[in-house]
Amino acid sequence: MNASSSRRSGGRSARRASRAAPLSDEMRPIRPGLEGGRYKALTQDQIEKIHNAALEALETIGLADAPESGVKYLTDAGAILGDDGRIRFPRAVVEDAIAKSNKQITLYSRDGKNDLDLSGTRVHYGTAGAAVSMVDIEGKEYHHSTLQDLHDACRISDVLDNIHFVQRPVVCRDIEDNLEMDLNTIYGSVSGTTKHIGTSFTDPSYVKSALEMLHMIAGGEDKWRERPFVANSNCFVVPPMKFATESCEVMEECIRGGMPVLLLSAGMAGATTPSTIAGAVVQATAEVLGGLVYVNAVSPGHPAIFGTWPFGLDLRTGAMTGASAEQALLSSACAQMHQFYGLPGGAVGGISDAKLPDMQAGYEMMCSNVMAGLSGLNMVYEAAGMHASLLGFCHESLILGDDLIGHAMRCIRGIEVNDETLALDQIREVCIGGPGHYLGTDQTLARMQVDYVYPTLGDRTSPKEWAEIGKPDLIEKAIARKEEILATRSAARFDPMLDAQIREKFNIYLPA
Amino acid sequence: MNASSSRRSGGRSARRASRAAPLSDEMRPIRPGLEGGRYKALTQDQIEKIHNAALEALETIGLADAPESGVKYLTDAGAILGDDGRIRFPRAVVEDAIAKSNKQITLYSRDGKNDLDLSGTRVHYGTAGAAVSMVDIEGKEYHHSTLQDLHDACRISDVLDNIHFVQRPVVCRDIEDNLEMDLNTIYGSVSGTTKHIGTSFTDPSYVKSALEMLHMIAGGEDKWRERPFVANSNCFVVPPMKFATESCEVMEECIRGGMPVLLLSAGMAGATTPSTIAGAVVQATAEVLGGLVYVNAVSPGHPAIFGTWPFGLDLRTGAMTGASAEQALLSSACAQMHQFYGLPGGAVGGISDAKLPDMQAGYEMMCSNVMAGLSGLNMVYEAAGMHASLLGFCHESLILGDDLIGHAMRCIRGIEVNDETLALDQIREVCIGGPGHYLGTDQTLARMQVDYVYPTLGDRTSPKEWAEIGKPDLIEKAIARKEEILATRSAARFDPMLDAQIREKFNIYLPA
Repeated sequence: MNASSSRRSGGRSARRASRAAPLSDEMRPIRPGLEGGRYKALTQDQIEKIHNAALEALETIGLADAPESGVKYLTDAGAILGDDGRIRFPRAVVEDAIAKSNKQITLYSRDGKNDLDLSGTRVHYGTAGAAVSMVDIEGKEYHHSTLQDLHDACRISDVLDNIHFVQRPVVCRDIEDNLEMDLNTIYGSVSGTTKHIGTSFTDPSYVKSALEMLHMIAGGEDKWRERPFVANSNCFVVPPMKFATESCEVMEECIRGGMPVLLLSAGMAGATTPSTIAGAVVQATAEVLGGLVYVNAVSPGHPAIFGTWPFGLDLRTGAMTGASAEQALLSSACAQMHQFYGLPGGAVGGISDAKLPDMQAGYEMMCSNVMAGLSGLNMVYEAAGMHASLLGFCHESLILGDDLIGHAMRCIRGIEVNDETLALDQIREVCIGGPGHYLGTDQTLARMQVDYVYPTLGDRTSPKEWAEIGKPDLIEKAIARKEEILATRSAARFDPMLDAQIREKFNIYLPA
Repeated sequence: MNASSSRRSGGRSARRASRAAPLSDEMRPIRPGLEGGRYKALTQDQIEKIHNAALEALETIGLADAPESGVKYLTDAGAILGDDGRIRFPRAVVEDAIAKSNKQITLYSRDGKNDLDLSGTRVHYGTAGAAVSMVDIEGKEYHHSTLQDLHDACRISDVLDNIHFVQRPVVCRDIEDNLEMDLNTIYGSVSGTTKHIGTSFTDPSYVKSALEMLHMIAGGEDKWRERPFVANSNCFVVPPMKFATESCEVMEECIRGGMPVLLLSAGMAGATTPSTIAGAVVQATAEVLGGLVYVNAVSPGHPAIFGTWPFGLDLRTGAMTGASAEQALLSSACAQMHQFYGLPGGAVGGISDAKLPDMQAGYEMMCSNVMAGLSGLNMVYEAAGMHASLLGFCHESLILGDDLIGHAMRCIRGIEVNDETLALDQIREVCIGGPGHYLGTDQTLARMQVDYVYPTLGDRTSPKEWAEIGKPDLIEKAIARKEEILATRSAARFDPMLDAQIREKFNIYLPA
């Protein structure tokens, strides 16, 4: 072996060793907050038309049913209360609120390891929703969802790389008292994952107790306010164009308590918004702009996520569908509206209408997830695990969603073009007097981990290998992974002392 | 009932009646040839960098192994044969070929009902490949593919709205003689569907017999040449940068016979092209540009599809993968290169690595199909039915692919923004003194079929309805649909007289 080849192979084995080590965040092919925006469902002209229509809707139609406190905040900010009880928003009032609003939101994680920077076109995926059922995949049954189901969803999400935040995906139906349900929802979520959490409140008066618990978990109110790791998912409107009176009061409480809010307008195209995609986006945009005025009237610059969440409808039956092609377009268009305003925003992706994680579920979940991501949507909610048009949540599907979202994220990362990647020198070396293939080139070896995303549970074996290893079933692999995760002690668990203190103060239904 | 409401309900029932009738092509929410292009994986600057690198590769590296006839055609066109046997292409020679090449290709259907206009960013989906196995979905087995399997694939594709062309997806492994295999491939395909067909040839000498058969089917050579309904899928290169000698000779025969050619460069990133997406696209572009010079040297303006088909590789194992995120990016980037040259082009989408049509298959198939379509790829090959990284083809998956592609096509159609769809008047009417919802508005009813795509086999029932109807299984529905299609007499069958004539002249293995 001559000196040159020895140096060469030494370099190669050093590289091989370094490839075996975990990649640093900068080297990983995908990571939270990759920048989207290369898919533009709308042209600039179309965006401006939607913007102008939304401003006109706010100015001439306005929103009904604001609570008394809201009327005061909004009229003080320059909005006009009409004789018909609707609050109308002159353009300047809306523009003023946009100018004042927080454009650099960070959604904090409890441990600081998974903070989400919602600036620009950075994309994050996570769970959300309020499913009332769990999918029992082995029995092919839907059963009522419980606190334990919610906690397990959080524990699973905690270890999945491509689930970046956990907004409460299921309702704890085993808790009858609404206050105890809301408090246990927070306990069950936060004790299951250190990632950023989203939750909601049934009644404005419950926020105070929740904040008490959160202050305890954070180690004091000041620590909580510094890094609030729970956001309030707030359905502040009842489309079309009406404030949800109680939710607005919840919102005011959350703002005062330093909790970021998701301003959520969840209309259904053809039922509570116009059936056209453009019309649904106009109305959702108008409603959320109305909410933005409200938030900034209560507390200028309070973190508020622009949550235009128009859903699809199957107009043949009038039933909700969250998985249609039209849904993918709705969320993609919303992403562009958020960017037009320069505001951090979120919408839905990844919902399936299928009852089980089958081929239909796979293609429905990918379509809206990848399109929302390519559109640069900051927060893709309901991105994994959600079936039956939001009625059912499935732990195994959540696990498979991690692969699915990783795949989408690699697409968002896109294509690097520079002298190295254009690879003209490499082509020349390989073709002229070279080996005639690229399998062992330094460039191929050096980039095999930084350029490529490999599935965790997805199968790439040949039919022959697949038969030899017993024809592994995707769902069975997901079940096994779920059991493995849930059998492991969670790193997100509270310190026993803190846990005891919480349990002393609150009625926690989850076994200690 | 007053006059106004009577008029109103009369109008509404007339509209209801008209909605029950089949929609005219112009009214359908999706149709072949929808225009993509709203997703741009590459910036203009990146496209130009790839273009320049490809030209430099052609000029300085060139392609080896042209057949003698090809050397003559190419050097007559201005290319230079080096002492190393490689043919190098000065820039002007390539630019001249691009200028001469056919930019308005129509791929004909046998019956004229499904002609494909490949101009601009019009998108079409179809089958392709050379799978050696069929997926037996009930037995979860892979078995050797046969002529009957191919014929059935064509018969199924013939009735699926969103399969726009049928390139031979499987190899007829039950026919040992290569000439008879090629001829029966054509017979089995063309007698199964009137849609445009793609096929390939094992040997240049087989083209003559195939043309004889095609002339008979067309009703004469002149009729064939007027509307050639079969194209030659031609692997004219062996990447990296070598002509496939025999395939080039096949290509020359096809050109002389008036058969459109698909100039197919099927490298594998990391093995036969550089591992980087940019490098793989550079090399494929260079190779196909070399082929374009060749075609236009034989016959200027002969219809040739720009077939940059770089595939992905799993670099951990060195095995092929057709389903990766990197694959979706490769094909999307290729679409932009085609558009840069103004040339009709095709690449792959829709391949799955999964062995069965499961959730993995669904998300893999959707990702590349929707991204290729949004990129405006004219021909998305291998878009349905293809499993195990091209080793297996599945009839049931093909059927489910029709729904999947319809879903993708609705996304390609995109968003209409105009005064009607912005719906400001409708919002006003509904909110102020109106019903407070949009379910029965004239606009909602009028647009429920023209705006929305509904799945055929995809399930949108609620969990309750789903349980009541016996929890229908997606795969079982696809099996039933397959059996239904294959039990029906095909409209594509040859006239018995013609069929007898063909069978007299050729050894047809398919039972009459």
